Formats: sequence, structure tokens, C-alpha cells
Amino acid sequence: MANEKALTTQAEDFSAWYNELVLKAEMADHSPVRGCMVIRPYGYRLWELMRDQLDRRFRETGHQNAYFPLFIPQSFLEREAAHVEGFAKEAAIVTHTRLKLDGDRLIPDPASKLEEPLIVRPTSETVIYEMFAKWVQSYRDLPLLYNQWANVVRWEMRTRLFLRTSEFLWQEGHTAHATHDEAEEETVRMLGVYREFMEEWLAMPVVTGVKSPSETFAGALRTYTCEAMMRDNRALQNGTSHNLGQNFSRQFELKFAAESGTEEYAWNTSWGVSTRMIGGLVMTHGDDRGLVLPPRVAPYQVVVVPIFRKDEERDVVMPKVREIVARLEADGIRTHVDAREKMTPGAKFFEWELKGVPFRLEVGPKDVAKEQVVLARRVPEGDERKQFLPEAEVLDSMRARIDAYHDFLFERARERREASSHRGVDSFDRLREIMEGAGGFVYAGWCGGGECEERVKAGTKATIRCIPSEEFRSAAAPERCLVCGEPAVDEVVWAKAY
Amino acid sequence: MANEKALTTQAEDFSAWYNELVLKAEMADHSPVRGCMVIRPYGYRLWELMRDQLDRRFRETGHQNAYFPLFIPQSFLEREAAHVEGFAKEAAIVTHTRLKLDGDRLIPDPASKLEEPLIVRPTSETVIYEMFAKWVQSYRDLPLLYNQWANVVRWEMRTRLFLRTSEFLWQEGHTAHATHDEAEEETVRMLGVYREFMEEWLAMPVVTGVKSPSETFAGALRTYTCEAMMRDNRALQNGTSHNLGQNFSRQFELKFAAESGTEEYAWNTSWGVSTRMIGGLVMTHGDDRGLVLPPRVAPYQVVVVPIFRKDEERDVVMPKVREIVARLEADGIRTHVDAREKMTPGAKFFEWELKGVPFRLEVGPKDVAKEQVVLARRVPEGDERKQFLPEAEVLDSMRARIDAYHDFLFERARERREASSHRGVDSFDRLREIMEGAGGFVYAGWCGGGECEERVKAGTKATIRCIPSEEFRSAAAPERCLVCGEPAVDEVVWAKAY
Repeated sequence: MANEKALTTQAEDFSAWYNELVLKAEMADHSPVRGCMVIRPYGYRLWELMRDQLDRRFRETGHQNAYFPLFIPQSFLEREAAHVEGFAKEAAIVTHTRLKLDGDRLIPDPASKLEEPLIVRPTSETVIYEMFAKWVQSYRDLPLLYNQWANVVRWEMRTRLFLRTSEFLWQEGHTAHATHDEAEEETVRMLGVYREFMEEWLAMPVVTGVKSPSETFAGALRTYTCEAMMRDNRALQNGTSHNLGQNFSRQFELKFAAESGTEEYAWNTSWGVSTRMIGGLVMTHGDDRGLVLPPRVAPYQVVVVPIFRKDEERDVVMPKVREIVARLEADGIRTHVDAREKMTPGAKFFEWELKGVPFRLEVGPKDVAKEQVVLARRVPEGDERKQFLPEAEVLDSMRARIDAYHDFLFERARERREASSHRGVDSFDRLREIMEGAGGFVYAGWCGGGECEERVKAGTKATIRCIPSEEFRSAAAPERCLVCGEPAVDEVVWAKAY
Repeated sequence: MANEKALTTQAEDFSAWYNELVLKAEMADHSPVRGCMVIRPYGYRLWELMRDQLDRRFRETGHQNAYFPLFIPQSFLEREAAHVEGFAKEAAIVTHTRLKLDGDRLIPDPASKLEEPLIVRPTSETVIYEMFAKWVQSYRDLPLLYNQWANVVRWEMRTRLFLRTSEFLWQEGHTAHATHDEAEEETVRMLGVYREFMEEWLAMPVVTGVKSPSETFAGALRTYTCEAMMRDNRALQNGTSHNLGQNFSRQFELKFAAESGTEEYAWNTSWGVSTRMIGGLVMTHGDDRGLVLPPRVAPYQVVVVPIFRKDEERDVVMPKVREIVARLEADGIRTHVDAREKMTPGAKFFEWELKGVPFRLEVGPKDVAKEQVVLARRVPEGDERKQFLPEAEVLDSMRARIDAYHDFLFERARERREASSHRGVDSFDRLREIMEGAGGFVYAGWCGGGECEERVKAGTKATIRCIPSEEFRSAAAPERCLVCGEPAVDEVVWAKAY
């Protein structure tokens, strides 16, 4: 049951607001294992609904699910130099396979020490491409289009529920192609699938683009990203798609006989999104009253609260409520009746608002008599929190209301982002001023140099989120690097990020 | 692509038959990590279809999915004495969290050694009940009905794909109740859900019953089981449901304020099935030509093989094939067209039989002209491998044929099991004779003593699979223990098991 103590407001302390909300809304909880979270049923159901939609799109684009081992032999990680450097410092390392009694306490049995330590997968490129090498002989076996839903571990010292945890859930796509161009096409296609999912299902607008070399995935040629803006104006990297080139295929002997008869290394891609998106969704839409869930993935799209005091009233209200629920469910709308006793309607309203349920219907004896219902949208369009509407009209329009609410949330988030996006910024001082103030996305010219990137990071904590795709670029391309004043090779988006 | 070399036959070497088949049918593969398997897309799709059906039933019985950490602190495992004894010898133990360079090789950084080792979960009772204790205050918070889909690790020295692997996928249900009787009811309910799933979806008949104390889950009061018979007459434990009593709640302080006002320990249950069932399914139905998949969970229920040589023939055949597929898919039938070029129809037939697809439709130009199709059921009812049937009749009847095939496979497996079940066996010598011969299930009296159980195991490798539920018991209850001749307290089922 939700605790009725008000949340810290976003304006007071955005970070405290987030932490309190995730716990109070029963999305997740801290576990007794340092840095690992428990995803509670309400949060997990949301993840399942997100997963099902992504999975459908992966299938439609020709991918198959499979499952690869949790453990990576240490030597595999070592083969790709950049890759091991990226993950060596956050590895959960399995060294023994048996506990034994030593006096009165258990210790890892020294006799069970593994010859080669195993790393709990931080990502699975290595073991997957080792298997691909076993399965691929000729160009006829390509492309291989695989996806895996799995848990991964990256040891973190400072963690936050969903946003940064030592263990998290994700999907990782892994593909092998005969040519660079095919791999590039796949990388971009999956970026598009992510963007579409984030916008059409999570109502989260994202800026897509390419990462700068310093932010590129460990072992990739090129990393594409979807960057979303949170309500504190910081960026969240919401999903990435990598063109891995032949970096892994060379290390894992992933070769094939080309149509020409020569032996060639395959071209790989990998792409992933994780439970981190849930954190992003909370910080994109939530407000001081709690979660605001985008309706297409909300575990409950409509909650019905029956209102009565006496038994006679109940006998009038409950049959009507059952009728309403049957109708909504027949329309494929996820509906929940909150029939808890010994709880006031007000406490129920408070809880479902905290939990971000898109629509609430209240049904009391007077409403039944008037053939009306009380409808409350979690975020109303105007000032009116509640509308008294004819029952038939509400039931007939519920699907359309869900779609309209989705569009409303998306547009609201897009407008927020645009209002906090700064274009034509042409001095480091101005960038610093923005970052020290309200923050946001700053579009500016960049010379392509790592030194300038480092200087901005050291001075403002902002990083290059991406070199934006065409549609996000400014009408007038910036001519000079914001930092050094040399000619700009690219326009980039600077922001502080999670 | 399947290799056309024939399988070792079941009669020659059942174990070799199994291993070859799982690899050749591309269900799974060995991974570079000792004891861990790769589940390939064909095997994984089967698992997904199984999972979706189980998940639906779990929801219908009021359970919610959640996700708990991969790691269990060693001290948690230690709290329940029987539990740690059960799992200490097969634990993957994480001891360090960073790799560092030592000369030119990487080693687990001694400075990153964990104060307390973490065990990769072999099962999650401990960490889940710790969380339950945090969430439960009063009887109003009960019951908690949770389920988790996850990977678990139990270090194995001798492994076999699906049947026994160091890592496997499963679901684990975990519940907390106010009374023993409610917990017992839940334990039995979930056993029933498993049985129904195995029979109605996998076409696997099972004998249900209670485990003897020596085979009871580490930490449980009582373990219920579903035991299936494989085609080599050995038993496979296919799923278990445990009444845990208060053993865990006492160790994890999982208490609640009862309606009476007193503080009481909750009563727990846990229950699980795993990817092991896939191995069971292969060994229940498969034959010397390959897999025989039960149609309700088969990734493809129908494969359509277009047959043509010339372009003109293709132009006649392919539109008809597309029409057939559209019709079958509209009926919700999972259909696949094998349009691979440069592959003979014969090679395709061979491959889809090896992969156990329930129905094959062949469509050639003559069939199109005659408005007929060639229908081949993976296991025909009589001798006829192929039937030439009017197209409309086949399409109209496909759903019914799938159901009839399911019933046929179930009945065939049940008859096999009954033919290899021996009742009224009243001497150890006879039991030994059966176990040294064809094997099977032996129903016999047992005095309840661990010594007699141990003697049979040592002498024949057979173990007590269960004390069968009422409906499986022999009409005349055995009076004496098969081993010692003392009065029997129970009838039990003996068998050699996987």
C-alpha cells in the first residue's frame, strides 16, 4: 500500500524525488546484495509489456531469439583489446565452484578453484561470435540475425534503481553479415526500431545520432544512440546500436567462404536496450504527484474505483462496475478494479495517481442512476481534474482516449525538450553558463578533437551525447568549434548525462 | 542445415541417439564454457511457447512475476542448514569484482576481493523470503503469490544438453501464506498446473506423488513431483512443488501480525520447472527419424514445401502456397514455407522430420491443378506416410488434426508407460530383474525406512520416484515392503531416473 506522505518535489531535489518515487510506487526495491535491485511486480509487468513490443518488432525485422551462457571465459574477454579494457574494472568474477567447512564456517573450497576464472557476462559479443564461427561456413549461412533477452552484470560502486545497477535486464541483438554495408544498414535499422519503440510506445522523444570516438562501445567501429531528455534537463542514453566491423570476427575466427570463393571475415553488429529505460520513462513523464505512465505500456490503463458506503449501494454499483470492466477488457484495455475494503476512495485515488495509471473511473450509486461515470485522466489537458461523462460515451471512446493521451504525453515531452535545447551557442562561456544554470541540450560546432571534448567535460561535466542525425541538425551548420574556434567538422549535442 | 547422416537408433544406444538428435535438430549446442549450453533458436522458440502457456496459467491462478538478484550472499545460503548442504557442493562463487594486469596477464585484482562471497543463485528461496519479510506486516498482506523466470546455476561435473547443465533456465514460484493448510493447498494446486501443462501441452503423461524424505527438496517439509517415463523406460523428474513449512520464514524473520493480534511466521511454498522439460519432451516422443514435437508447442505446426522445377511451375505453385499459408495463419496455426532453392524436396522432408514438425504439406503443379495437397503427419496413424487430400478439406480440418495428433501422442506415450509399469512386484529379486532388463516403473510396498531405500539404490540404481497420488495407486495396496518384508506404510514407484 502506498504511503500517503508527499514526495519530495522535483524542484526541491530531483534525485530524491526519483528515488522515493521508484520505491513508493513499488516499481523496485533495494536488495540485500549490494548494487542489485529487486524489480517488483508493478515494475516487472511494465518491463514485460515493453519487452513484448520490442520482441514483436525484432521478429518482424527477421531476428530470432536464442540463449547463450551466463559466463564468459576470461580469455575470451581478453581477445578484443578495447573490449576487455572497457569491462575489466566492473567484472563479477567466478573463481570457485564449491563451498566447504573450514572449522565452523564455510569458505570457497581451494580444491575447487577454476583454472580459468569466469566472468559473469557484462555483454555477450565474445561468446556469441565464438558460436557463430562454429555455425557459419559460407555466405549462404549469412546473415545471422540473433537476439537474446538476458541479465548482465557490470559491477558498480554507486548505484541507482533502474538507472545504474550491478545486475540489469536487457536484450542484446547480435548479427553477422557478408559486407560492411549490410552491417551498417542493420545497425541503422535497429536504431530506427528503438526510436520508433521509444516514441510510439514510451512517448519519449529521442535525438538519434552517432557517438564520438571516446563514447563509442568498447570494440565497435561506430555507435549509434537514442538520447532522451529527462525533466531535470539531463540526457539519458536510452539505447545503442553498434557497427562492430570485423573487430570481433577477426579475434574469433568468424570467417565464411564468400560467393567469389575467397575466405572473408564476417561483419558484426550488436544493439541493446535495458531496464534503464524504465528509469528514463519515470524521469521523462513523472511529476510531483508520482509516476505518469505512457498508456500503451502501462500495466493498468484504466483503474475503476467503485464508490459506496452501504450494502444496498454496493449491490447497485458492483454489477455496473463488472459490466464496465467486461466491456473495456473486450476492447483489449488493461483494466483493474480496486475493490479493497477499509480504504477510502481518496486513499485509492492517491495511490493510483502515484502509480501513474492513465485513467481512473469512479462509479457511485448516483452515477449508476444517471448512467454516467467520473473520469479522471492522470495528466488532464486543462484544469479539470474530473469529468462527469455519459457512461456510453466514455466506454466508446476509451481506445481513442488512450491514443490521444499518448500523443499528448509525447508532444508535452517534445516541447519540454525543445524549450531546453539551445542552438547557435558559439562560446564555451555560454555553454558553461547553461550547464551551471538549468542545463539542457546544447547544439554546437566541434572540431573533432578529443582535447576539446575533454576540456568541456572537465569544465562543465557535459559530454558529447551524439553527432545528431540529419533531421536534428540546426538549419545553419555551426562553422567553428565551440571550444577552440577551429573549423567545425560536425555539429554535436552537449549535455550532462545520467 | 541438417546433416543427412542417419541418427544412431534408440535401440543401439539411447543416450547417443539423444545427444546426436539435440545437436542435429539444432535445438542446442555445447558452449565454450564447461557445462553450459547454448539454446539455439529452434529450441528457444519451443521454450518460449512453453513459457507463455505456463505463464498464462500462473497469472490465472493469481501469481505475479517479479525479478530478484542473480547473486545470493553466502551467509543467506548458510541460514537454512539443509538448504546449504543441498547446494554447497555445486556453487558458482563470485569472489572478486575487477581484473587487473599482472605482468602481461590479467588476474582477479586481490584488492577487489569481496568481504563476503556471492553465490550465483542455485534457487532463490533465501533472497526472496528476505524481501518478503520486508514487505509483509500483517495478515492483510498475505498471501504473496510470486513467480520469477530466470537463469540458475548448479555446478555440474557431468552434463547433458537440457537434462543436466550447470546453467539452466527455469521459473521458480514463491509464495507466503498465513496458514499451513493454505500453503499445502497452493503446493498441490501448482502441482496440478504442472501436470495439466505437461499433459495438455506437451502430451507427456506424468505420475504425480510425494517424494520420500531422502528425495525431498533441501529445506522443504514435503516435495510433490511429476514423474514422466522416457522411451528407455527411465524416469524423468519433470517439475516439483514444495511445501516449505516455516523453515525459511523462521530463518528470514518472515513474520506477520495475525488476525488474532499475535505475531506468527508465514508458511512458504516454492515450485519450479526448467529447460530440463525440453529434454523430457525429446525422450518421451522422439523416434529413430528424429524429434516428434507435440503440436501445441511446436515452433512450426505445419511446414509447406513447394515443389517445382521450372519457372512456369513456380508461378503456379507459389501463389497457391501463399494462399494456403495465409489461411492457416489466419486460423492461428504456426506455419513455415520452406522455399530454399538448391535443395531437393527429399532433403527438406528429411530435415523437417528430424526437427519433428507435426505436419508437412507438399504442393506441386499437379496438386494445384487437382485442388489437392499432399499431407504427411510426422507420426502417421497407420502405415500411410502421405495422404493425397482435397485442399479445402485439409485447410478446414487442420485445427482438428492438430488436436487429434496431440491426443494421439499423449495416448501413445501413456500406453508405452503403462506397458512398462509393473504392479504387484513383491520381491527385491524381481525388482532387480526388471531393472537389469528393460527397466520401467515398479509399484511396490515400502516400509518407510531409509535403509531399504538405500539398499535398492545400491543394488539396482533405482530410486523411489514418488509415493503416488491416489489415482495412480494399485487397486490392491501392497502389504509388505519389497525389501525387508515388514508391513508397508506406502506404495511407492521405483525406477532408474535421469
